[in-house]
Amino acid sequence: MNKNLKNRAQILQEKLQESQSILISAIGDIAYLSNFKFLVPEEREAFIFVTKNSFNLIHTSFAPINNLKFINYLKGSFPEELANHLKLIIEKENIKNLLIDPETLFVRELEAIKEKKLEVAINNYPKSLIQDLRSIKDIEEIEKISLACSITAKVMTDIIDELKEGITEIEVKKRISNLFELNNILDLAFPIIVAFGPNSALPHHQPGEKILQNNMTVLIDIGAKVSDYCADMTRTIWFGKQKSERFIEIESIVLQAYKEVINKMDDRKTSIKANDLDNAARTYIVSKGYGNQFIHTTGHGLGLSIHEPPSISWSNQTNIEPNMIITIEPGIYLNDEFGYRYENTVLVTKDGTKELTFESK
Amino acid sequence: MNKNLKNRAQILQEKLQESQSILISAIGDIAYLSNFKFLVPEEREAFIFVTKNSFNLIHTSFAPINNLKFINYLKGSFPEELANHLKLIIEKENIKNLLIDPETLFVRELEAIKEKKLEVAINNYPKSLIQDLRSIKDIEEIEKISLACSITAKVMTDIIDELKEGITEIEVKKRISNLFELNNILDLAFPIIVAFGPNSALPHHQPGEKILQNNMTVLIDIGAKVSDYCADMTRTIWFGKQKSERFIEIESIVLQAYKEVINKMDDRKTSIKANDLDNAARTYIVSKGYGNQFIHTTGHGLGLSIHEPPSISWSNQTNIEPNMIITIEPGIYLNDEFGYRYENTVLVTKDGTKELTFESK
Repeated sequence: MNKNLKNRAQILQEKLQESQSILISAIGDIAYLSNFKFLVPEEREAFIFVTKNSFNLIHTSFAPINNLKFINYLKGSFPEELANHLKLIIEKENIKNLLIDPETLFVRELEAIKEKKLEVAINNYPKSLIQDLRSIKDIEEIEKISLACSITAKVMTDIIDELKEGITEIEVKKRISNLFELNNILDLAFPIIVAFGPNSALPHHQPGEKILQNNMTVLIDIGAKVSDYCADMTRTIWFGKQKSERFIEIESIVLQAYKEVINKMDDRKTSIKANDLDNAARTYIVSKGYGNQFIHTTGHGLGLSIHEPPSISWSNQTNIEPNMIITIEPGIYLNDEFGYRYENTVLVTKDGTKELTFESK
Repeated sequence: MNKNLKNRAQILQEKLQESQSILISAIGDIAYLSNFKFLVPEEREAFIFVTKNSFNLIHTSFAPINNLKFINYLKGSFPEELANHLKLIIEKENIKNLLIDPETLFVRELEAIKEKKLEVAINNYPKSLIQDLRSIKDIEEIEKISLACSITAKVMTDIIDELKEGITEIEVKKRISNLFELNNILDLAFPIIVAFGPNSALPHHQPGEKILQNNMTVLIDIGAKVSDYCADMTRTIWFGKQKSERFIEIESIVLQAYKEVINKMDDRKTSIKANDLDNAARTYIVSKGYGNQFIHTTGHGLGLSIHEPPSISWSNQTNIEPNMIITIEPGIYLNDEFGYRYENTVLVTKDGTKELTFESK
């Protein structure tokens, strides 16, 4: 891991010019480059500040750090402390250009830097600078995500087997949590989603006291974390002997939309873009009359973050490349009735795809 | 709860002038005012935008919302979508002043608003505007936090009883998680901290494979959540028959520092400030020669967020008032040896204090 980390730092530094510097403030980017873990994600526990000649982790004084040799550890991450660290390095290394990430840097932090009146031009850095690195997974990352996915799929099979009349959404959540623990998974990629009946019409419903009854839809969306790497998987089932006609209709549309996307990747001869994948699912669902009920993107990259580039959205023209790992998750949501989502985590291979959230039975 | 929420909204709106508006971007503030829950805290799932005449929740399309009558729900929270929502309301209601929270608003979000070239002055809102509301807890909030604390204290007693030679930090974490579940706690206030021996010298150490042996320090820092409200409690024990002299020395200093703070609150005749409390603990620890090893503040407020105002720090001059709930947690950290922290969650009462993380035995 340390070798990988150092390698990532070097690749980034090679892209910089002698007088350039880059301030990294996205949690996932910081984890990717330094292995630093946030205890409370909504607090600013760390930044990374990189120049051609130095790689600095600016962090709260009480945060656990790894003491890696290629990293300078600097204590204090409040806006004023951040600005002081930057000032010292910028002046010492004669930096003329400061690149920032406006989507994750707070207004107050930028103000504090500007108040130092440094002789430095401040610009946004191209999103691709770190995203291009993160979106192509290396072998270790693929192994971790694959393991997280296979455990997630096993837990999914087990919990669906165990569903019984009278159980509440919260009780199912509790049992899922137990099943993960039995597989030595203590950290999850995101809060467990369990939705019965009409609750499934809300993509991010959180478990409540709703009771499972016969002839009800059950939507379960879960993901393990293995060594900080995420999995993501959704299944929607009909609880009861006889699926409703409406359920059968919606299920077949969503499953076919999913296949359209996989086929698009498996059959690709030339390069294909993220929006081609979204388009494959969306065109099919629109053709069946449910375009307005497919209310989210077709998927997203995942890794150290549960949502990371590439977004599989209608507007993203990023090329889909081997060793990207993405979710494919078309869904149709019928208010006050039910929602149906089908989601796998998928590895893009040289000539096709590999579904990582693979159920063994 | 809905009544409380509406009341909070009204108090905030009463503080605004006719032409003012306020954009709220802190997760805890948003939860406090609307009961909106973030699924992935590092993603921007919602804002609140308040004017004298309207209370708007701007949120991602797939987030669960409560459909409360006093709230206008507006879909789309990307920077450009946010800016569009604001533009419509600002022009419709003839708003002249936009107050923002620079500590939680991203640079890109402010840019998107400015790009709309609205005829509106943009200023930072006084931190006290919402913090003063949140820091004084109402009866329902006190009940929820009290329950979270009493369960946390019970789990703490149980896990300390169960410690045995050969167990790893991760195994202890797993067992704590089980104990919480047995008490119907599925959500925790923060990741479980379990640190053996020298690992306890790092305040936020995360559990690893270290094995518990005789004559070792064990630091455990845990907190349940009840209805989204946090508890926070730390105990440090000596595992073994005979405490080392060094441990006895440090333990007695930290416990006395804790008492100095409680006494300061219990004996108060006039108003007292947050920094008076920090000072009480710090002066004592400094007098014993360990000032440089007390590397964090004496405590913090808690509620919907694990860290919220008032910070019990050397620089915070906020008055300590009845119905505030704060942690008191002095600690001494000796690198490569061990750390000792003692922490309770404490309710400030009219004439003293009440320790909420109270162990029954």
